Amino acid sequence: MIEPRPLLITGAGGFVGRQVVRQALALGHQVVAMDSVTAGIPEGARIVAGDLGDQEARGEALGDGVCAVIHLATVPGGAAEADPAASRRINLDASYDLLLEASAFGNRLRFIFASSIAVFGDPMPAHVDDATPLSPKMIYGGHKAMIEQAVALFTNRAMIDGLSLRLPGILARPQAPSGMKSAFISNLFHALKAGEAFVCPVSPLATIWAQSLDTCARNVLHGLMYDPAYLPPAYALTLPALRFTMGDLVEEIARQCGSRAELVSFVPEPALEAAFGAQPPLFTPAAEQAGFVADRDLGALVASALTALA
Amino acid sequence: MIEPRPLLITGAGGFVGRQVVRQALALGHQVVAMDSVTAGIPEGARIVAGDLGDQEARGEALGDGVCAVIHLATVPGGAAEADPAASRRINLDASYDLLLEASAFGNRLRFIFASSIAVFGDPMPAHVDDATPLSPKMIYGGHKAMIEQAVALFTNRAMIDGLSLRLPGILARPQAPSGMKSAFISNLFHALKAGEAFVCPVSPLATIWAQSLDTCARNVLHGLMYDPAYLPPAYALTLPALRFTMGDLVEEIARQCGSRAELVSFVPEPALEAAFGAQPPLFTPAAEQAGFVADRDLGALVASALTALA
Repeated sequence: MIEPRPLLITGAGGFVGRQVVRQALALGHQVVAMDSVTAGIPEGARIVAGDLGDQEARGEALGDGVCAVIHLATVPGGAAEADPAASRRINLDASYDLLLEASAFGNRLRFIFASSIAVFGDPMPAHVDDATPLSPKMIYGGHKAMIEQAVALFTNRAMIDGLSLRLPGILARPQAPSGMKSAFISNLFHALKAGEAFVCPVSPLATIWAQSLDTCARNVLHGLMYDPAYLPPAYALTLPALRFTMGDLVEEIARQCGSRAELVSFVPEPALEAAFGAQPPLFTPAAEQAGFVADRDLGALVASALTALA
Repeated sequence: MIEPRPLLITGAGGFVGRQVVRQALALGHQVVAMDSVTAGIPEGARIVAGDLGDQEARGEALGDGVCAVIHLATVPGGAAEADPAASRRINLDASYDLLLEASAFGNRLRFIFASSIAVFGDPMPAHVDDATPLSPKMIYGGHKAMIEQAVALFTNRAMIDGLSLRLPGILARPQAPSGMKSAFISNLFHALKAGEAFVCPVSPLATIWAQSLDTCARNVLHGLMYDPAYLPPAYALTLPALRFTMGDLVEEIARQCGSRAELVSFVPEPALEAAFGAQPPLFTPAAEQAGFVADRDLGALVASALTALA
C-alpha cells in the first residue's frame, strides 16, 4: 500500500495556522506542520521546527513530496514595517524559494498562498472588486503582491497549481503581541469580554472587512478542493468578507457578552483610520462563484470569534 | 554654482539603452551610463562599467545622488528562460536593491522601470487594455511583474516617484544574438535589406505589437517629464504600440528596401506563434492621455527601424 502524501502547512503555529491544522486533521489529512514556534500546533500533525528562511527546514518539511502546500508563514504587517529586511527575507525570498522547491517534485502541487487585502494599499479606491489593480503601500502588502505574481508565473508554467487567497482581517486574535497593526480590533473583543474599558483607535463609523477565524480556515482548506479550471487569469482571489462599522461591532460584542458598549471610547488615530477604518464596499463574485464564503452575518461572526477566544 | 545631478541609465550599452543615452544627451541631460558591456555607449556619458548585480558598481553609478533613474538593465527573455537563476539575480534581486538604494537619497527620485508586455503572459486574453490583470508565463515577464509591484510599493511609500512602462517589441534590433526570443522579427529586416531568403517562424497572419527604437526611446524619456498626478493607481502603463500582421510587415519592408516579399517563406513554430504571433487588439488610453505615443503608421515604423539599421 502506498502511503498517502501529507499536506504541508507553513506558519502552522500561528493564529490562522493552528486552526487550519485543526480543521485539516479533522478532514482526515496527514499534516506536516512547519513553524519556528511550534508550541501551539494541535496534536496529530508531524511537526517540523524551523524558520521558513532555513533551507534545510524547508527540505525536511517537503520531504520526498507532499500532496499540497498551504503557505501561511509570514512576517506580519507591523513587524514587516518595523523590519523591511526581515520581510524581504521571509515574505519575498523564502516564499519564492518554497515555490521553487515545491515545483521540483514535478507533479503540479496545489499551492495555496495566503496573501492579504494589503495588496490594495491605502487609501483604498472607492470600491474594491475582482478587477481592482494592486497598489500596495505597506511592506507586507508589497511583498504579498510580488509573491502573487510569482504564484501566477509558476502556475502558468505548469510548475505548480497555485492560488493566492487575499485574507481580510481575521477575528479574534489572541491578546499576545501579534505584530499585526490591526490587532486593536481583536483587543476590543478581549476588553468587552472582560468587562474592561477600551480606547478604540478608530472612529465608530470606521468600516472594516473581516472574517471569523473558523470561516477563514474553512476558506483556506476549500482552496485545496477548488477546481483549477475556474481559476481567474491571475490565480488570485479576494476572499468574501463581511463589511461593518466599528460602532456596530462594539454593540454586537457587548450584546453577546452581556457587557456594556459604553466601556468603549473612540480616539481615532489618523494613520490607523486610513489603513484599517476606511475599507470601501467590497465585491468578490469570482471567489463566491468558486464557493468561498463570508460569515453569515455580524452576529454569526462575533459568536464564532468569541468561541475562538474561549 | 551647484552642479546639476546626472540622470542614471542602467543597461545603457544595450539596444534600447544606447538610443536612450543618445536622446538624453541631445536633450541636454548629464548622463551616467551603466552596463557590464560598455562598448557601444554613445560618447558624452560618464560610463560606469559593471554588472547590475554588483553592489559596488551600483554605488558608483548612483554616486552621491542622481536626478532620476531609467532602469533598462535586464536579463532578456530568452536568456531568462535558459537561466532562471540569472534572471532572479538581475531582474528581481538586483532591481529591488537598486530601488532601495535609489530611495535612500530621500528626494523621491523619478524612477522609470522598463517592464514588458510579457507581464500579460501567453496566450494573451482576447484584448488587452489598462485593466487587464497580469499573468506572466515567461520567467522574464514574471520577474518584471514582481518588480512592477515593488515600484508601486516604493512609490506609495513616497520613497521614489516610480513608473513602470511596459515595452512592446522594439524594431529593429541588431543581428547579434540578443537573448530575445522575438529576435526573428528584427532578423526579417536584416534579411530583406540584404536581399536574402528568410524563413519566418510565424504565419503571415500572425499579429504583433511593436514600436520603432526611436519612438521607444522617446517614450522612455517622456516618462521623466510626465506629471505624477496623472499616474494610474498601479504606477504602470502599457505603452501604445502599432498592431499589424507579419504579412503586412514583410510587404512594407520589401517595398521600402526595393526588395521582394517572395524571399520570405512562412514555417510557423507553434510556441513562437503563441508567444509572439497572437497579440490581440491593444487599448492604451491611460498612456495616450499621458502623452506616450505609438509610431504614426506601419510605413513610419518601418522607415524608422530601417534608419536605425543603417
